[in-house]
Formats: sequence, structure tokens, C-alpha cells
Amino acid sequence: MSYELFVEVTRNGTVESRHFGAAVVCDYKGVVVESWGDIENLVFPRSALKPMLAIHLVESGASDRYALSNAELSLACSSHQGEQMHQNLVASWLSRLGLTEDHLACGAVLPEHTESAHQLLASGQQGCRIHHNCSGKHTGFLTTSLHLELPLDNYHLVEHPLQQRSLETLSDIADIDLQQYPMGIDGCGLPAPTMPLLQLGRAMARFANPVDLSIDRSQAIYRLHEAITNEPLYIAGHGSVVSELNEVTKGSVLAKSGAEGVITAALPERGLGIALKIADGSSRARAVALLAILEYLGALSDEEKHQLQAHIAPKLVNSRGLAVGEIRPAASWLK
Amino acid sequence: MSYELFVEVTRNGTVESRHFGAAVVCDYKGVVVESWGDIENLVFPRSALKPMLAIHLVESGASDRYALSNAELSLACSSHQGEQMHQNLVASWLSRLGLTEDHLACGAVLPEHTESAHQLLASGQQGCRIHHNCSGKHTGFLTTSLHLELPLDNYHLVEHPLQQRSLETLSDIADIDLQQYPMGIDGCGLPAPTMPLLQLGRAMARFANPVDLSIDRSQAIYRLHEAITNEPLYIAGHGSVVSELNEVTKGSVLAKSGAEGVITAALPERGLGIALKIADGSSRARAVALLAILEYLGALSDEEKHQLQAHIAPKLVNSRGLAVGEIRPAASWLK
Repeated sequence: MSYELFVEVTRNGTVESRHFGAAVVCDYKGVVVESWGDIENLVFPRSALKPMLAIHLVESGASDRYALSNAELSLACSSHQGEQMHQNLVASWLSRLGLTEDHLACGAVLPEHTESAHQLLASGQQGCRIHHNCSGKHTGFLTTSLHLELPLDNYHLVEHPLQQRSLETLSDIADIDLQQYPMGIDGCGLPAPTMPLLQLGRAMARFANPVDLSIDRSQAIYRLHEAITNEPLYIAGHGSVVSELNEVTKGSVLAKSGAEGVITAALPERGLGIALKIADGSSRARAVALLAILEYLGALSDEEKHQLQAHIAPKLVNSRGLAVGEIRPAASWLK
Repeated sequence: MSYELFVEVTRNGTVESRHFGAAVVCDYKGVVVESWGDIENLVFPRSALKPMLAIHLVESGASDRYALSNAELSLACSSHQGEQMHQNLVASWLSRLGLTEDHLACGAVLPEHTESAHQLLASGQQGCRIHHNCSGKHTGFLTTSLHLELPLDNYHLVEHPLQQRSLETLSDIADIDLQQYPMGIDGCGLPAPTMPLLQLGRAMARFANPVDLSIDRSQAIYRLHEAITNEPLYIAGHGSVVSELNEVTKGSVLAKSGAEGVITAALPERGLGIALKIADGSSRARAVALLAILEYLGALSDEEKHQLQAHIAPKLVNSRGLAVGEIRPAASWLK
């Protein structure tokens, strides 16, 4: 278990805090192209698995049966911020299935998007299950359950056939048997599998270029690429690095965040996958580290870097509106 | 620059995230009793300095002149959560000085206390300067400025005589010249000095037992001990480890948090000071680490540990209300 210094948080040029991490870049044959820190260490990929969990939704035929739009498929892969656009689409999708919010197994929460949360509170509303960042994924699971005529009750439990199939698909793409590894429960109630960081990188590389998977599986993955690339705001939301990376690079970088400092990216044109874990689980460091790796790999053009500048080295602004520091890749890293 | 593994965040018993840190325990003569990681590394103590910044408020005579209560002095040392009780006391104290919220240099924000913030939003209100966790400290500065007939404008700037005096007092107690070290600007606009972590530990030890400082300074410090111990809820708030540590130990542990993963404690009866920095700046790990050190030092009775259990190894509860993990001292630490 070892980490490298990835990200520094500075105040007036002096380092105030430091984020350590591990990361791996793999090609779709599983070869490690670059790595930092201990990549054999187990991670909980958490929401970084969502695009891979959506494969079964497409491959099973559920997506075609219910004529899911690009936006709905992007939402199935999402950790959405609970903006009005996300709330509306989850609600209308559930309604089309003949279901309601009560069918969702995730808990009731406020939107992660601050303005949206404040607007709700100001209008006298409270948290609800649709606002949960995982509600798109859950609606995807409900869609597949309906299509396969599986029970809707307890669809979130590891013993439910839907979760068993999902774990099989994940195990195939990650090329390990996830049932042999420790498993937890996620924030939304679903099983939270673990795998070595290396395996997460390999899975992302195969998600980037699925040529070695079955034809049905690879076609499902290409369908998800298309959906996310066409509707990047539905995989996260306005101002999010995940949405903006997808949007700015026009799908040549498909990023996905996970809780506790995980972030991944698939680079379809280069057949590369990236998996990164910030040891301490913080959100603020992971995007800065991922963007530094993308820059190091030459995966971003000057124009793309210009458009992503706010995520490459975010400014810290104090309560008086003054820029007092920044978050940046560690001076010692990637030299 | 080196850190030790202090805290692990687990999910179903498997470690998900790791927090590294450095810490020092000193006695009031400056002798290092225990240390972990590189204690010569510079830290921004941030709000951990507040009790020491309040010394001048008492020593200058401003506190007596304006008959500050224990609650007001505790608030002057505080990072309060912006609960109604804190809002009310800042407002009445300002009013007694003939001042208003507009005199505060800190920015307008929502309370850190989630329920209080939600209540405000639900009642159609917005953030204000009084809600800022530093508004008690700022009101303290305004009190001293009035007493010393210093300008009230720009009292937050480093060149203002009040800040110069504060830096002198801090330099005295930390036994270094802070003007020779890098300085930033804090979240509330005030100067944010740096010092080696060791020096912060020494300063806390002298705050615990000020016998080697001048009589006036030591009496001011004893007055602050009394205020905080009598009004622990005004130095932070309900549910906060800082308030609960002070309350449960009846003042034998005077803790104070700082931003970016800093926490300190003064143990008056033992003449010890503790300074701790979580490298990544996270809040969730610092209290767990501090409590582990206090336990290691034998500074908590069984009854106190029982009362503080929620802070010693906090449970992680998911959106469905299920306990899915915990935050705990690293298995490898303090053995």
C-alpha cells in the first residue's frame, strides 16, 4: 500500500494541504502503460462503475424495448447533480415505466447541486429519492427488471438476480471474479464491490475499446459511448469536470467519478483506460490529478486545456470573494 | 515532509480511504513528548489560532471594559456553527458595541450547521456575515479596536495595528517571529500566518500552562480557559467534537479546530499542548486522530471515552439509514 504525492493545495503560494494517490493507465489488451503508487491495492470504485453497470441495460434489450433516449442512457451511467433537468428526466422515465419514486431503493436526499438544493428548500420542499445522484442508475435497474420480468422489490440487494447479472458483467469486463473480493454496501444501498486499482484501469480500457468482448457486449458499450457523448450534461451536470471533459473533448475522453476520491476515464480512440484513487477520498483532488495525467499523455489539445482551465488548477476563493490559493498538480509529480 | 497513516475509513470492514498526518505533543517548557511525521513542516493553523488571538482582547482590557461574558469570550475563540444561539449572541454583542453586521470584515455565508442553514433558506433568508464561523473572532477584534481607539475600517488587513499586535502576541506564545514566515489570507479575510507544526504544539502547551509568560498574558489565558470551560457550546456548537471534548472533560482538554485538517488541544492540568495536521486537509479524520492521541496519553477516563464514542470511531450511515462503515484510527498506528 503506497501512494504518490499527486495534488497540492496552496495558500498565497505556500503549500497548505497535500493529496496522495495511486493511478494506472492501461491499454485494452491489459498492458500497463503508466502507473503511480500501489496499483494492486483494493479500491471500491463506487459510482465509477455506473457506465459498466449500464451495459446490461442495453445488452439485455431493455433499452431498446423502452426506447431509452441518449439522455436517459447517459443518466443511467450518471452521478447526476440533481438539477431540474435531471429531476425531470428521472421522473418522466419512471412515469413511462408505470413506476414512481417509491420504487427507487436509494434514500431521500437533497440535490448535490447547491443552487438546486437551495431553491428546493426555499420553496418549502425537502429531499427525495429522485434527487439522489444514483436515481438514474436505479431507474436503469428498474427498467431491466421490468424487461426481464424480475421482481422489482429488493432489486438493490446482492442476492437479487439483477445484481448477480451485473456482477457477472462487471467481472467479465474487469477480468476477475468480483464475488471472490470483499464487498460493501454503497451510499444508495446497492452492492459496492472492490477490485485492485489495476483491474479498474483494465476494465476502463476495455470499456474504451471493447473489441475483445463479445459482439453484443461491445455493441452495448458503443451505444453508451454515443449516449454519453451526445448528452454529457446528463452524466453529471453543469460545471462538473466529468460533463465538461466529455463535452469539450467531444467524447474522446469519457470520464466518470466515484465516491471517496475515485475517478476513471476511457479514451476510445486510443484504447486506453485510466483509474485513479485519491487515498483520502477527497473530491477536490481527483479531477486535478486526472487532468494532469491526461495532459501528460498528450490527450488534450491546447484548445481543450484552455476550455478546462478551471478544472486544471482551480482557484480557491474566500468568503470575501478574494482568490487566496489554488489546487494544482504537485510540483514534484509527472516531471 | 513526511506523514504517518493516522486514520482509516472502512466499508464493511475493508479499508476504503486513508488519511495521513503529522502531530506533536509538547510540554509547556517546549519539550517534545511525542511526535508522528515531520513536525518541522510549515502549517497554516488557521482557526486553531483563535483562542490565542483572543488573548489580546482580554490583556488589552477591552474584555473588562465591555464586560464580556463567558459566552462572548468563548465565541471570540470560536469557529461557531452558526446556530441560532451563536447568531443571537454575535448580534447582541455587536449591538452593545453600537455596531452592526456591516462592520464585520468576514463574508456573507450560510451557517455551517446544516439544520440552521436549511431553516434559514426555508424562511426565505440568505447567508449573512453573522453566520460566518469567524464572526465571534471578528466581533472580538472590533471590541479591541474600539477600546484602543484604533480605526474600525480595514481592521482585517495585516498592516492594521490590531493585526500587528495580534501577530506579536502569537509570536510570543509560539516563540518564533511569525513575520519571518510565509503568510496567506484566511477564508474570512484576516492574515493567515504559518509556523512549523512543532511551534503550534509549543504554543498550545504554553496556552495550557502559561506560567512562563508575563503575568498579564497568563491571567488573560486563564480567563479564556474559564470562559471556554463554562460555555463550551459557544466555541463550536452542538454535536461538535471541540465543544463536546471541552464539556465532557470539564475543561481538562481544551480543543480547537482549524481549517484544512488542523486540530489542537491544550491540557491545562498536565501542561501539555497537542498540534495535529491531516495532510489532505479533511475534517473527518482530525478529531478521530486527536482522540486517539488523547487516549494514548491516558488523558481520557473510561467514562469520558464512553461519552465521546461517536467521535472516537464515527459510523458512516448511507442514504437508506444503514451503517455501512466507520472512521477509525489506523490499525497500524499507536501500537
